[in-house]
Order: sequence, then C-alpha cells, then structure tokens
Amino acid sequence: MRTQAAVPDITAALAEVAQEVDATLDRLLPLHEDADGRLMEAIRYSTLSGGKRIRPFLVLSGAELFDVSRPFALRTAAAIEMVHSYSLIHDDLPAMDNDTLRRGMPTCHVRFDEATAILAGDGLLTRAFEVLADPATHTDPRVRADLVVELARASGVDGMVGGQMLDLLAEHRTLGMAEVTRMQRMKTGALIAFSCEAGAILGKRSDGDRHALRAYAHDLGLAFQIVDDLLDIEGDAETVGKTTGKDTEAGKATFVSLLGVERARNQSAMLAHQAVEHLAVFGEAAEPLRSLASFIVERRN
Amino acid sequence: MRTQAAVPDITAALAEVAQEVDATLDRLLPLHEDADGRLMEAIRYSTLSGGKRIRPFLVLSGAELFDVSRPFALRTAAAIEMVHSYSLIHDDLPAMDNDTLRRGMPTCHVRFDEATAILAGDGLLTRAFEVLADPATHTDPRVRADLVVELARASGVDGMVGGQMLDLLAEHRTLGMAEVTRMQRMKTGALIAFSCEAGAILGKRSDGDRHALRAYAHDLGLAFQIVDDLLDIEGDAETVGKTTGKDTEAGKATFVSLLGVERARNQSAMLAHQAVEHLAVFGEAAEPLRSLASFIVERRN
Repeated sequence: MRTQAAVPDITAALAEVAQEVDATLDRLLPLHEDADGRLMEAIRYSTLSGGKRIRPFLVLSGAELFDVSRPFALRTAAAIEMVHSYSLIHDDLPAMDNDTLRRGMPTCHVRFDEATAILAGDGLLTRAFEVLADPATHTDPRVRADLVVELARASGVDGMVGGQMLDLLAEHRTLGMAEVTRMQRMKTGALIAFSCEAGAILGKRSDGDRHALRAYAHDLGLAFQIVDDLLDIEGDAETVGKTTGKDTEAGKATFVSLLGVERARNQSAMLAHQAVEHLAVFGEAAEPLRSLASFIVERRN
Repeated sequence: MRTQAAVPDITAALAEVAQEVDATLDRLLPLHEDADGRLMEAIRYSTLSGGKRIRPFLVLSGAELFDVSRPFALRTAAAIEMVHSYSLIHDDLPAMDNDTLRRGMPTCHVRFDEATAILAGDGLLTRAFEVLADPATHTDPRVRADLVVELARASGVDGMVGGQMLDLLAEHRTLGMAEVTRMQRMKTGALIAFSCEAGAILGKRSDGDRHALRAYAHDLGLAFQIVDDLLDIEGDAETVGKTTGKDTEAGKATFVSLLGVERARNQSAMLAHQAVEHLAVFGEAAEPLRSLASFIVERRN
C-alpha cells in the first residue's frame, strides 16, 4: 500500500473526477424555469454542493481497468452520486438524524423545507434509475438492466435503506461488533461495493473481476466507516463539514466506542491494506484505487 | 361506452386482478425475520392493504391486447403498484398532506413512525425498479430497460414527484384551470399513462399502439381525478376510506371548485367517453378497458 506520498496525487485526481462528475450532474439535472423550479433547485443545491465524490472516483477508476467509454462511466458515476445525495437529504430530515449542517451548509430541509426535501430525495432516486437505463449509458441493454438491478439491491431494503433503519433502531438498544459491522455494510458498504463493481459491469467482465473489485470495496467501505466514526469523535464541525459528536451524544455504538480510538485506527489501516491486496490481479492499472485506500484512512474530513 | 350494466362485471374483474397482484406483491416483498423486519412490515402494511388496483388492471388489460406472458405483466403491475404505494406513504407524511387515514386504516407514519414511513417509501420505490430490471420481468433486456426509463419519467420530477410539488405550492396561491390540469397530469396522470403503455412495451408494439393507449390513459386519468375531487366534496370518510373535504378546507383549487359540481360531473363523463374512442383500433379485446372507463366515473370510493 502507498503511504503519505500518494496523497497529493490522489487529492488532485479526486478534484479532477469531481469536476467531470459535477459537469455531468449539471447536465442531467437541468434547472426548470417554471413553478416546479423549486424542486430542481433543491435537488441541485444538495447534489452540486461539493462532496469528495469518492463513489464516482471508484466508478471511473474501476471502468478505466476495462477501457470503458468515459461518457458511460460518467453517467453511471453521476447516477450513484444522485443516490448518495438523496440518502443524505432523507437521513438529515428531522424525523431521521435531524441534522442541520452538511458539507458546511444548511441541510436541504433547513434551506428549503421538509416537504421539498422529501420530494427532492424521491426525485433524485428516480432520476438515478432513469439515467442508468437510458441508452446513452451503454449500448448493450443487458448491461443497463444489470446496473439498475445492482444499484437497487445496493440501495434498497437489503442495502442502504435497510442499514439506515438498523441505525435508527440502534438508538434504542446497544449493538455489538457484529451488528454494527452488518449495519454499516448495508448502510454505506453496499453502495461503495456497487460503485467499484459498476466498472466491471460496464466492461462486461467475468465474475472473477467483479468479485475482486467487490472484495476491495468490502474492506475499503469498512475502513471508510471506521474513519468516519473517528472523525465524529476527534474532528470539529468546521473541518468535517457536518455536526460532530452526534453518535456519542446519542449513546450509539460505533466502531470507536466498541474498539477504542487506538484499535479503531489500527483496524482501519489494516482493512485498507487488505483492500489493496485484492487489486493485485489488475496490476499497475489499479494504482488510483490503491492511492484511494491510503487517502481514505488519512483523510481529515 | 358501456353504461351502468358493465359495472358488476368490472367489479369482479378488478377483484380478480387485485387477488393476482396481491399474491405477486406478497412474493416480491417477503417479510424479514431479523431486526430490519420492521421496515418490511411497514412496506407490507401499506402495500398489501387493499386498494382498487386500478393501475395493475390497466397493465394487465393492456398486456392482454398483445398476448404478453401473464407473469411478465403481473411483475410489471406489481412494480407500478409499489410506486403508487410509496407515493401515498410519502404524500401522507406530516410535512406533506398530513393525513392520518388511508383505505380506512391509520397511515403508515401513524401506525409506525415518520422515519419508518420515509424509509418504507424509499425502499418500495427502489424495489420497483429492481423488479422491472430483473430478467424475470421480460426475456428481452431492451424491454426491461425501456420499462425502467418510462416508469422513472412517469414518477420523477417531470411526473408524479413534480406534480406533488406543484400541489403543495398550490396551497399558497390559487391555480387556474390550465395549472390544475397540468398538476394533475403530472401527479396522477403520468403513472396511469405508463400503466396503460406498459402492456404495449411488454408486447414490443409499434408507436401507434403505444400512442393509442397513452391517449386513452390521458383522458381516463383526468376523468379519474375529477371524480376524486367530487368524492372529496361529496363523499364521507367511511365510504371513501380517507379524510374528505381536505382540499376545500385548505382553500385549494380543484376541478370541482373551478367548474362546479354539475359541470365537473359532465366533464368526467365526457372524458371517459373520449378515452374509450381511442380504443377502437383494438376491437373487442379492449372491452375490459372500456368497462373500466365506466367504472371510473361511477365509483363511490
């Protein structure tokens, strides 16, 4: 695994991906002129407000392994980012995590209102599937249908939505390590895994390549979440860009509360290292994915 | 157009479709055993709680015109009903229409809680796309991708979700006839139109057949909405199964407030008659769709 030295490169590479994906999102989410302009305004406010674009970076880096057409990969990356953005809008709602700050800005329901935020999330999720199924995303309709099925599995009741439900239920009881791991795999891991696998789906690759990327994503996703938990404890809202200390306040079990800071930090490094080992089969072409693993455990927001 | 005499047949036909679709939904939304069981319980509570299943009836009747395999049509009908059900769950939320009664039962957020209701809606919408894109819904992946695109268009920002936004904004200003018509076409018309068109998509039919079904659905959808507005004024909650008189109370413009009861009733009959004329090209095979048009304008809930 690369260390500190890789980080400046990856920061520039992430910024480049962010610019490309933002341009794609800007085109796929055009502002309406008339009365329903408010809805698209809320969608754009939440989706085009920065963010590290880690999922798009995974899609594009995975797609590069298999010479996938860049426009196909960008549309897929944008669709996944739409789903990520919708999940943040809904998770921030008063009835859910009741967050007022996101990426250093008022959350969608604070800036607009609750009804608009709910509908903006619904509209984003719907648009994501429309984008994936559209002929512009791949010439082979089988690939498009496959992308839709896998995105739905990653983000639905057996994935992200189910994970958020488990997270909410965790406020009423203390979870153990196995339960926290399962909850996080569903809540954030499944979409990260799909982001990696999408490149192989777009490239019509064998199960072997798909599994290698999933295994990488599996470990990377957990490492990512452990670092999130560490930042929630150690970071300040200004650097992290969202309210910190919330999990501790809510008495929720996290990787940090279960392992302690030191072991959690070691665990995240170990998982990132393990993630990178799954990439051996792809050789040097997987260098961006290796750099990302270092970035994930060293990030400060 | 058939008159009163057709209604007993159509009632039986609707009940038969409801039974078949409910069995399909029951299979596609299996109850979970573990901690996240609550989410699927909420989904099943809202989706398997009766309802007239008019959209599934449209899908199945359309599919019968083109000899589409029944299991394909049933899965498509179930997916559309999932989207309809999710829209009701979200529309009923306190931040939206704040409804406590639906199909004579407590709404999802009343029976469970707001967070669960939001996630149940999200999970249902996601599952609908998964079902359509799954190989079990059609052998031809192009058809599956096409179904996904058209469902997304009908239910997203330019369709149902956008229509609900316009409806919410209408609480703050008075809409004219053109605006109410546009809002209703988006809010309820688009999904009804897709329900009709889905049979032709599954049957891989020409644009001509698709357009004829859309034109039927276009008129039927408006007739349906006008009757809804009439029932909101004239019905009692017990018969209609949901809170009535809400639009009047909120001072919202409806077809009835704009046209008056008598003209609204005439208008709905005229639209149903006009809807049926678009079916001439399909001959006797379209009899169920003709009967439905009569049923729509004569229904009491």
